[in-house]
Amino acid sequence: MIEKEIKKSTNAEGVKKEKTAERPTRVRRKPKAAIKVEQVEAKQKEEITVTVEETEVVKKPAVKIIPLGGLEQIGMNITAFEYEDSIIVVDCGLAFPEDDMLGIDLVIPDVTYLKDNIHKVKGFVITHGHEDHIGSLPYVLKDVNVPIYATKLTLGIIENKLKEHNLLKSTKRKVIKYGQSINLGCFRIEFIRTNHSIADAAALAIYTPAGIIVHTGDFKVDFTPVYGETIDLQKFGELGKKGVLALMCDSTNVMRPGFTMSERTVGKTLDNIFAENTKHRIIVATFASNVDRVQQIINSAEKYNRKVVIEGRSMVNIVTTAAELGYIRIPDGIMIDIEQMKNYSDEQLVLITTGSQGETMAALSRIAASIHRKISITPGDTVILSSTPIPGNEKNVSKIINELSAKGAKVIYQDTHVSGHACQEEIKLIYALTKPKFAIPVHGEFRHLKCHAELAQDMGIPKDNVVIMTSGDVLELSQDSVKIVDHIPAQGILVDGLGVGDVGNIVLRDRQHLSENGLIIVVVTLEKYSNQILSGPDIVSRGFVYVRESENLMDEARTVVCDALDKCLNKNMTDWGKIKNEIKDSLSDYLWKKMKRNPMILPIIMEV
Amino acid sequence: MIEKEIKKSTNAEGVKKEKTAERPTRVRRKPKAAIKVEQVEAKQKEEITVTVEETEVVKKPAVKIIPLGGLEQIGMNITAFEYEDSIIVVDCGLAFPEDDMLGIDLVIPDVTYLKDNIHKVKGFVITHGHEDHIGSLPYVLKDVNVPIYATKLTLGIIENKLKEHNLLKSTKRKVIKYGQSINLGCFRIEFIRTNHSIADAAALAIYTPAGIIVHTGDFKVDFTPVYGETIDLQKFGELGKKGVLALMCDSTNVMRPGFTMSERTVGKTLDNIFAENTKHRIIVATFASNVDRVQQIINSAEKYNRKVVIEGRSMVNIVTTAAELGYIRIPDGIMIDIEQMKNYSDEQLVLITTGSQGETMAALSRIAASIHRKISITPGDTVILSSTPIPGNEKNVSKIINELSAKGAKVIYQDTHVSGHACQEEIKLIYALTKPKFAIPVHGEFRHLKCHAELAQDMGIPKDNVVIMTSGDVLELSQDSVKIVDHIPAQGILVDGLGVGDVGNIVLRDRQHLSENGLIIVVVTLEKYSNQILSGPDIVSRGFVYVRESENLMDEARTVVCDALDKCLNKNMTDWGKIKNEIKDSLSDYLWKKMKRNPMILPIIMEV
Repeated sequence: MIEKEIKKSTNAEGVKKEKTAERPTRVRRKPKAAIKVEQVEAKQKEEITVTVEETEVVKKPAVKIIPLGGLEQIGMNITAFEYEDSIIVVDCGLAFPEDDMLGIDLVIPDVTYLKDNIHKVKGFVITHGHEDHIGSLPYVLKDVNVPIYATKLTLGIIENKLKEHNLLKSTKRKVIKYGQSINLGCFRIEFIRTNHSIADAAALAIYTPAGIIVHTGDFKVDFTPVYGETIDLQKFGELGKKGVLALMCDSTNVMRPGFTMSERTVGKTLDNIFAENTKHRIIVATFASNVDRVQQIINSAEKYNRKVVIEGRSMVNIVTTAAELGYIRIPDGIMIDIEQMKNYSDEQLVLITTGSQGETMAALSRIAASIHRKISITPGDTVILSSTPIPGNEKNVSKIINELSAKGAKVIYQDTHVSGHACQEEIKLIYALTKPKFAIPVHGEFRHLKCHAELAQDMGIPKDNVVIMTSGDVLELSQDSVKIVDHIPAQGILVDGLGVGDVGNIVLRDRQHLSENGLIIVVVTLEKYSNQILSGPDIVSRGFVYVRESENLMDEARTVVCDALDKCLNKNMTDWGKIKNEIKDSLSDYLWKKMKRNPMILPIIMEV
Repeated sequence: MIEKEIKKSTNAEGVKKEKTAERPTRVRRKPKAAIKVEQVEAKQKEEITVTVEETEVVKKPAVKIIPLGGLEQIGMNITAFEYEDSIIVVDCGLAFPEDDMLGIDLVIPDVTYLKDNIHKVKGFVITHGHEDHIGSLPYVLKDVNVPIYATKLTLGIIENKLKEHNLLKSTKRKVIKYGQSINLGCFRIEFIRTNHSIADAAALAIYTPAGIIVHTGDFKVDFTPVYGETIDLQKFGELGKKGVLALMCDSTNVMRPGFTMSERTVGKTLDNIFAENTKHRIIVATFASNVDRVQQIINSAEKYNRKVVIEGRSMVNIVTTAAELGYIRIPDGIMIDIEQMKNYSDEQLVLITTGSQGETMAALSRIAASIHRKISITPGDTVILSSTPIPGNEKNVSKIINELSAKGAKVIYQDTHVSGHACQEEIKLIYALTKPKFAIPVHGEFRHLKCHAELAQDMGIPKDNVVIMTSGDVLELSQDSVKIVDHIPAQGILVDGLGVGDVGNIVLRDRQHLSENGLIIVVVTLEKYSNQILSGPDIVSRGFVYVRESENLMDEARTVVCDALDKCLNKNMTDWGKIKNEIKDSLSDYLWKKMKRNPMILPIIMEV
């Protein structure tokens, strides 16, 4: 017998006893532990706890929402929606490593849950083509090979990735248009046009047996977009009229008041800069994926009779794809190859490049550091950074600005960018249109989610109906209740080179230790039976001190080790673990007292 | 015979042949290579180059300005002023390590030039008590033990440092009041009252044989300061009337338009926050050295009947010093010890603490991470971050905000801080008052200095009279010429633990390599004459892979090493350097092909 708890309220809505159509599943479901009747007026409620038999309760259809990443962090967005034998996955992004993840290239989600339930997984539904929404696909598809559904440009960008990873043939994929719906298991998913800093972004209306869940993806409201039309606000309104069970809305800019400016305002700024700098070469650095931004730079170039050079591998890839699919208009003859630059004078050229975030290996960093093979800064060059530093990149961006300025370039980096994410008033607009019963803020660190939760309450959602989730939480959502019922592992998996998951906390801790203090290796060869020293102890160090200028120190260190070793051998100590510890402790003590440093000490005993 | 170049102009001012009173010096001076007659209208000039004998030229008095740090960077401010047998040094700050200076605690200036000319050095003249202006004193005084001159609070803070380093007895020091002058060699230095984010900040008027040089130090213009009076604008005007040869002015905020708000505005914000949060404990984190900010927090506490607890070692030190010297007013009975907190309810308490920049070891970080021994966050706590993240600290500050929010604290961090540095209009005001002939922007990265140079030109300084210097440049400044005549070493010196300068580029490069890729050690013992393998090869790794889950890889690596070693020994190779290289190259190739990783490989051969 399982005990259940029902919270009743004096003014609760009547409990509709809907019977869930049970479907056969291969995985046994745990019995739902509780049902909570939602309170209309939470403040006035008077709670009565009643214990009832399981047989007395008839469940309402409840869908599970399981974010495998993307919460309490920016990046690695991936969320599973589960109902009985169906799972769909919205997005499959990566995260860039935190500062303490030394040597790590990227972080991908732990999809063990999807692997364990692979027979249920119907497909990936992708909202747009940014790395934090698609970047893990090549890794995850190896284990979870299900079809991908996305809009045309989004899928085009994904296909570039799949080609690189030799996964194109083995991956089913389908282009979905705005307004079109797909049925995946017991879910129906409708793609809704939005605006964002990449074209072809979509929100999703997910029709579930429990009700309609609206997931905004990353979005902004742009009334004058560069490509295509304004976000389909009518559809959000229509869904609201039908009744939206839950809204999962982008939190990235929720702490900013007001309304994000239209992408087109950047075009005007660019035009002005082109008009004021007619005598010199113009270099514009921006995000490779911001096709509309590239379009506007090309527009300005056309207006001011400049040829356009595209530089940086990711920029070339995305612009090529966007051009092939018709998302960018490139006037005939405007594009020239980087090799042809020498045939034009500076005032006839615009260079569009990557590296606006100060990424060390990107084109702009190499240009600034004078290590780019084909482009070097000449005094008078006008360099526009058409982006805002993402938190953590500020110093790298400053470094590039300093380097470019020192070489005589004029660097323009203020008011040359608008965000791709909705500010407070836009988010409120979506709430006003959809009027959801439940709010589940997504995409953000805790402070963003918390701020979003407050905004949702300001928009009339009762406090109990706003849920701040953590990656790995299993949320059970029914027509009138929401509850976190479980938690599954959702730590990111570290990718280092070709290694996926072979670097964990222990390895990172060692890298941290080595990076801060360096290393001392003590090697000694002992005779197996007599325990006599045959060779050594030798001391090798790296990342500790510059040995040639610290000979005294190294001599003293060797003496400390010899003394420790002699002590051990005189005691006839035979446990080499203990001998190693003796060596380590004595040397460590000596160095700490002598210089307040704590290198990693590795004693190695060879046996002959 | 030395060739000299004189530039003459059709409309040049008459060349006044002033004779410099030669003083005996122990260091031979290099002959000045050129004298340039300053152009009133640079555009109209017509240059004639005349070659003349040295004997024909009579030098005007020329002072040397040598920044040993502080340019092209924020921090480590130290500038030498030299005239014949006199050197004075303005400030002696430290810099915090850049991201790529792994394991480094702080960076101090290279004062070789001062050591080499120690007989000339008359003293340190300190503008204010911030680390980037005083932090290197305990290190530098060991080699350059000359008197320190500073205002009362500044010297109080310096004395705390000297005590810690046991240097108090051996260091001469003197308190200087605003308006007071000191004579050091052939320099006279007058201290001028300014406003800044620490009390008792001073600008300096340096009277030299070449003319008056005004150095602003760090400053802002605060018409309603919390302690003391407004910056002595009259004095700047008076100096301007006398004639200022050069202005060396703070560039930190030169890219910000407008006027920095008064410190007092923060007091009003704090009052409002106290008024709105009467039910909960209030925790305010700010810079330890911002005594006026602490004063305002205490004022709000007094107004709202709260007791004050000070937490964090540096905060306690500075507040104690400021209180002793009368720079802070502490109402009787308001301060309580941290141990007494339990005797008061939350709404009766304010905690003032360090860590507003997210510094890992500071009190606020430890509180946020629940590892503080005496304070833990309870839901409802109101935490105010009264600071703005310094570039590079953004992510650490966000982390703390997320942690505090997740524990239920209300975190307020917007509009709770004002800068201590002058914005554009304040800088222009100083130019308008002093009307210098030459402008030498100080305190800033290249982009700040460049922006400042443009501002100086807007203020009417001819382009040729504005000098952007680099640390180590030796600038020669006379009544009518300015020229960089030499460059001396001015790279920062790295401090790691007690080690000063024993970590350089090679050690840092190894730390970088270790931090990103980890380490593999290969040890083998060989018989001395036969070259027979007596033991090993053994492989030890750290920071590379989690070995217990990578046994196959480590086995294969060992095979690769054995093969390489066998090959060498079969060839009767006796050069151990070559054998080590063979091992290293084979293993490196194998690992790169296998996993696209590049650990540091250290082969060690023991000889028996």
